[in-house]
Amino acid sequence: MPPLTLDPNRLFPADPGTRAIARKLYDGVAQLPIVSPHGHTDPAWFATDDAWDNATALLLAPDHYLYRMLYSQGVKLEALGVPAHGVPGDADPRAAWRIFASSQHLFRGTPSRMWLDHVFAEVFGFEEVLSADTADHYFDRIGDLLATPAFRPRALFDRFNIELIATTEGAHERLDHHDAIRNSSWTGQVVTAYRPDAVVDPEHEDFHASMVAFADLTGEDVMTWRGYLRAHAKRRQDFIARGATSTDHGHQSARTTNLSAADSAALFDRIVGKDWTAQDAELFRAQMLTEMARLSLDDGLVMQIHPGACRNHNSWLHHHYGRDKGADIPGRTDYVGGLKPLLDAFGNEADLSIILFTLDESTYARELAPLAGHYPCLKLGPAWWFHDSPEGMMRFREMTTETAGFYNTVGFNDDTRAFLSIPARHDVARRVDCAFLARLVAEGRLRDWEAQELAQDLTYNLVRKAYRLPEASPRSLASAA
Amino acid sequence: MPPLTLDPNRLFPADPGTRAIARKLYDGVAQLPIVSPHGHTDPAWFATDDAWDNATALLLAPDHYLYRMLYSQGVKLEALGVPAHGVPGDADPRAAWRIFASSQHLFRGTPSRMWLDHVFAEVFGFEEVLSADTADHYFDRIGDLLATPAFRPRALFDRFNIELIATTEGAHERLDHHDAIRNSSWTGQVVTAYRPDAVVDPEHEDFHASMVAFADLTGEDVMTWRGYLRAHAKRRQDFIARGATSTDHGHQSARTTNLSAADSAALFDRIVGKDWTAQDAELFRAQMLTEMARLSLDDGLVMQIHPGACRNHNSWLHHHYGRDKGADIPGRTDYVGGLKPLLDAFGNEADLSIILFTLDESTYARELAPLAGHYPCLKLGPAWWFHDSPEGMMRFREMTTETAGFYNTVGFNDDTRAFLSIPARHDVARRVDCAFLARLVAEGRLRDWEAQELAQDLTYNLVRKAYRLPEASPRSLASAA
Amino acid sequence: MPPLTLDPNRLFPADPGTRAIARKLYDGVAQLPIVSPHGHTDPAWFATDDAWDNATALLLAPDHYLYRMLYSQGVKLEALGVPAHGVPGDADPRAAWRIFASSQHLFRGTPSRMWLDHVFAEVFGFEEVLSADTADHYFDRIGDLLATPAFRPRALFDRFNIELIATTEGAHERLDHHDAIRNSSWTGQVVTAYRPDAVVDPEHEDFHASMVAFADLTGEDVMTWRGYLRAHAKRRQDFIARGATSTDHGHQSARTTNLSAADSAALFDRIVGKDWTAQDAELFRAQMLTEMARLSLDDGLVMQIHPGACRNHNSWLHHHYGRDKGADIPGRTDYVGGLKPLLDAFGNEADLSIILFTLDESTYARELAPLAGHYPCLKLGPAWWFHDSPEGMMRFREMTTETAGFYNTVGFNDDTRAFLSIPARHDVARRVDCAFLARLVAEGRLRDWEAQELAQDLTYNLVRKAYRLPEASPRSLASAA
Repeated sequence: MPPLTLDPNRLFPADPGTRAIARKLYDGVAQLPIVSPHGHTDPAWFATDDAWDNATALLLAPDHYLYRMLYSQGVKLEALGVPAHGVPGDADPRAAWRIFASSQHLFRGTPSRMWLDHVFAEVFGFEEVLSADTADHYFDRIGDLLATPAFRPRALFDRFNIELIATTEGAHERLDHHDAIRNSSWTGQVVTAYRPDAVVDPEHEDFHASMVAFADLTGEDVMTWRGYLRAHAKRRQDFIARGATSTDHGHQSARTTNLSAADSAALFDRIVGKDWTAQDAELFRAQMLTEMARLSLDDGLVMQIHPGACRNHNSWLHHHYGRDKGADIPGRTDYVGGLKPLLDAFGNEADLSIILFTLDESTYARELAPLAGHYPCLKLGPAWWFHDSPEGMMRFREMTTETAGFYNTVGFNDDTRAFLSIPARHDVARRVDCAFLARLVAEGRLRDWEAQELAQDLTYNLVRKAYRLPEASPRSLASAA
Repeated sequence: MPPLTLDPNRLFPADPGTRAIARKLYDGVAQLPIVSPHGHTDPAWFATDDAWDNATALLLAPDHYLYRMLYSQGVKLEALGVPAHGVPGDADPRAAWRIFASSQHLFRGTPSRMWLDHVFAEVFGFEEVLSADTADHYFDRIGDLLATPAFRPRALFDRFNIELIATTEGAHERLDHHDAIRNSSWTGQVVTAYRPDAVVDPEHEDFHASMVAFADLTGEDVMTWRGYLRAHAKRRQDFIARGATSTDHGHQSARTTNLSAADSAALFDRIVGKDWTAQDAELFRAQMLTEMARLSLDDGLVMQIHPGACRNHNSWLHHHYGRDKGADIPGRTDYVGGLKPLLDAFGNEADLSIILFTLDESTYARELAPLAGHYPCLKLGPAWWFHDSPEGMMRFREMTTETAGFYNTVGFNDDTRAFLSIPARHDVARRVDCAFLARLVAEGRLRDWEAQELAQDLTYNLVRKAYRLPEASPRSLASAA
Repeated sequence: MPPLTLDPNRLFPADPGTRAIARKLYDGVAQLPIVSPHGHTDPAWFATDDAWDNATALLLAPDHYLYRMLYSQGVKLEALGVPAHGVPGDADPRAAWRIFASSQHLFRGTPSRMWLDHVFAEVFGFEEVLSADTADHYFDRIGDLLATPAFRPRALFDRFNIELIATTEGAHERLDHHDAIRNSSWTGQVVTAYRPDAVVDPEHEDFHASMVAFADLTGEDVMTWRGYLRAHAKRRQDFIARGATSTDHGHQSARTTNLSAADSAALFDRIVGKDWTAQDAELFRAQMLTEMARLSLDDGLVMQIHPGACRNHNSWLHHHYGRDKGADIPGRTDYVGGLKPLLDAFGNEADLSIILFTLDESTYARELAPLAGHYPCLKLGPAWWFHDSPEGMMRFREMTTETAGFYNTVGFNDDTRAFLSIPARHDVARRVDCAFLARLVAEGRLRDWEAQELAQDLTYNLVRKAYRLPEASPRSLASAA
């Protein structure tokens, strides 16, 4: 059976001279603690510290990168235990795992493969590749290990050297798990982030239910424009009290607008009535980005804008399985026209910080780098989602650095709910950044001491600064030293 | 005079370690037979096995890659013998060849140059580069060789180790040459493919004439919606009987729609009347993609969609010379919105297979890889036309693999009428794929045994599977062994 | 303090074999004279030959690449001495320089950094990097040197081995400085170029004032369509008399149209009245590109089209500081549809020459290379503005060469007002071109003697041919020999 080994020089350029430079840069940052300012881990894990069930429930059924690839090759989601509308699938976990194990060739050349190899080799200690032949061995051993204290969420958090992790909660969601974490004796830093999409997007299937919860949690009359805005301001304070330093906005487009208060109120009345059009919905989301910027000027939360996905593109799958099932497809995104109203209002505010992400790489050099290389309020988030990959990260650096520089970027986001893969993902990012820096050094475009500073900044300092994170805890600083 | 030599390591990365890996991978696939599932060779060649006339008529006058470059530098098409509206040009073939020979510098850095070098060195055995000085030598020797039995179409087909080649015929065209091939004693596999554009696109200049032929060939009343659809179903069976396993659709956009039967019939009535608008024409093409998918579910033909070219962009040239004269220019293409109606109808059908091509590389990572990495019915065709080139193929792999993997792709298409260049084109594709795989191995992203399997799959197995080709003939399997 | 050194092999590929090829190619062109056919140096410099003031006034305050990056990080433009609406800033030059000096890390990985290093090391002879510690040393020494005869404009022009430089003047501007240069005993070739945007774009803030000057300078009734066109024809002759061989057009889009004379006149009447819409303005600019092409057919001026920037995107900055303050942001550009009306009119004219530029790299392979690889009148300008950078230039070659070849390109443009950086910019272009050619040679895609010819052509011959420049002066030819 083929051995599972991780090449210590993986992702470094093949040219021996450049590889040596990359290796040296990487050695300087490989052990830095992980700062994860944007992601989707479940705070319940850290609140309860319960053991996970099995390999399928932990690694396969929740990972849309994995089951979308299997689905594309004709595997049914029900065979993999993927939940439908939140109801856990009833597939036999071992049978699902065997399907996955026998389809590993599909992941050749994908980042999932790099992440999985790292998880299997480093986290679980496997020495043979996953395949049909080793499927049961993997399933059993992972199950056994997950039942041990060393594989509980908090233990792994510490083992992974995570200094801080942010989860994402909706404006309509309670923050009980965060309270439990903060009230516990555990010192791991888990903070939340404010994601109000479900109360901002009238086309979201949970809009009405979310608005009801939003009213409940704030005591505001969220069916009036003023009350609705006050509710946002209040909830943002709730989030800040649980460590949040950022908001997040996942609209389909980057459109913004800046209506008068009267027009905003009139638009809002249509939205909370039932008499709105798709154009009204788009306009309301556009106005809300500007409102969120206005609130950020008050309370200091960093805005993250993640536009460009056509959500739930597969109607049949959406109907039968619900959201977030690997069927979101990116489209063209216009930042130059879309963001102008917001930037006309607040673009020159030095106290505002907006981090832009994209799924449309054609905007890197054309729009995003020129915008971030000019406006004081703008920074560029890292390569995201489909582009959170070695080639994607390299294109990000190649296409943004010359115009925006490195210091208008914000370090790495893992953006994942796949907790066990977090060290793998950060490791890939560090290696790719070091590979890029090494090429610049080898080509006489950057001095070696500058590259060393940059490797530290891209790994650790920029993310803390961009997300306005509190001073690192002593533990973290010790790790970094 | 400069010698003509082919670097045995051409197209492999320069780094010696990576080059050695690429070389080894290539050695494993270099001799595999050629499977050419999509192209534009003339079936008459293989039916009659007549000798070709001369270098200009065979290599220059029909090759739009060549004469478009010369035209861009001020050479008149009539000087090159390019046909006008199907009428062969009356330029002196030798004089045309001399112009071409003295303009070789224009092709530096282009794929035409790599293909020509291969044809001249490997097929004809030249040892000096083509230039003004060697023009006559080339013209004479090529003419002499073409008159020999070894350079007849069937002999070259065998020499080139072609296992199967598909030509492309219109829905309105007879398939007599295919019948002649099948009724002959020659065992070469030449199949057809169903390209109904001329009876699907009301804006095609041959639409009305093609509809008349379509009616004749099917005996259906093609002026009624039902009869028109029955005619398609019938003709598809005619093509299947001549070995066709695929259809092909070259629309300007990727737009689809899924009208009700009544609305489709009403639209069709406008189309076959004269009372249609450009919007109707676009809508009709959009509806016909969905109809073709529906028919494919019945008869199993694989759909190929080749969108994105603005045909006949040069009005003057179109008027004076006709279609396909190097004046088609790509534009932006929207797959995410365009394909949604068809995918809403049939996207989750495991029995449907649609191969998507593009001329808009910005869609590779943004749209096509996410679509093919999710929908069971979708696969990605190889880099096409302007992108069928070393840089273009490499970008295709770099921008699609991380999201769609390798197994949602379908191997190589040469898509050419330049028969003598077919081995050159497949060789370029094999070399570039091996170069890409070698980099992944060198960077620790792929194991060497996986790369070897992939090289075989990308060269041979994926194309046979994706195009649902019958089992290879013993000859082919022997070649592959 | 870190030393300032220039790696003699900078920008060459790291692989030793490829680097050696690149080095040899570069050695063959490094000393060729500079031909600068498009730029924004001030002709007053060469007319008066006055000394420049100080480092800030010469290098920082006029360079939007530099102050836009500082602005993006919160530095105020007034602190840098950037002029507001043409009024020089009153910041202390030394204090401004110190801010710039202490922010050098922002430029890591940017082309500005490469250009500045070259200027500091080669032009001024510094041996330590610019930093907070060396800020005053730099400021003082640059000031001292600028006061010496060797650093006067004409002396540097000669030292830089500039064979010809083109400035850019508006249709409404006097050409007195050019007259003074031509009437002087100095033999440096400084020519103008015709940039009529201010009298072609009704949305330009100086449109009305420019039209008044346009009338004054031509004696034509520019408020009538016929008089307006005659005024253009006259002024073009004025420019030709000052050495102009080209026009330049910086529209937001690439849209063209070809209205009838009557419709053009009616549109013009709306434009010079006050009763026009944004659509009228766009249509008028579109029509004027076609009119300029028509005039070029008469007088032989080469057209340059530089579309795609959303000018003055930052409304607040535009209001307070005026145009050209680093706040122009590129957007998507459609060439295929946009240029069709002009190409339908004149696309096949062998005597017309139009050089296309872009800020939208997604058009390189998709639109621009196919257009230039077909139409006799079209050529591709080099990587421009945000893409005038090592990565940008390399992408230009990688994405255009395979379809348009090298001979539909026109050499390098520095496009700069930063006179001291001109040798640095041309050096970067030569190095990147040699790096690209070296890779093609190393990969067996180009013969070494072809690469040597190409290096000469890309550096020197193509620019002279494309811009229809007069025969080089003996001095230049001697330099080239």
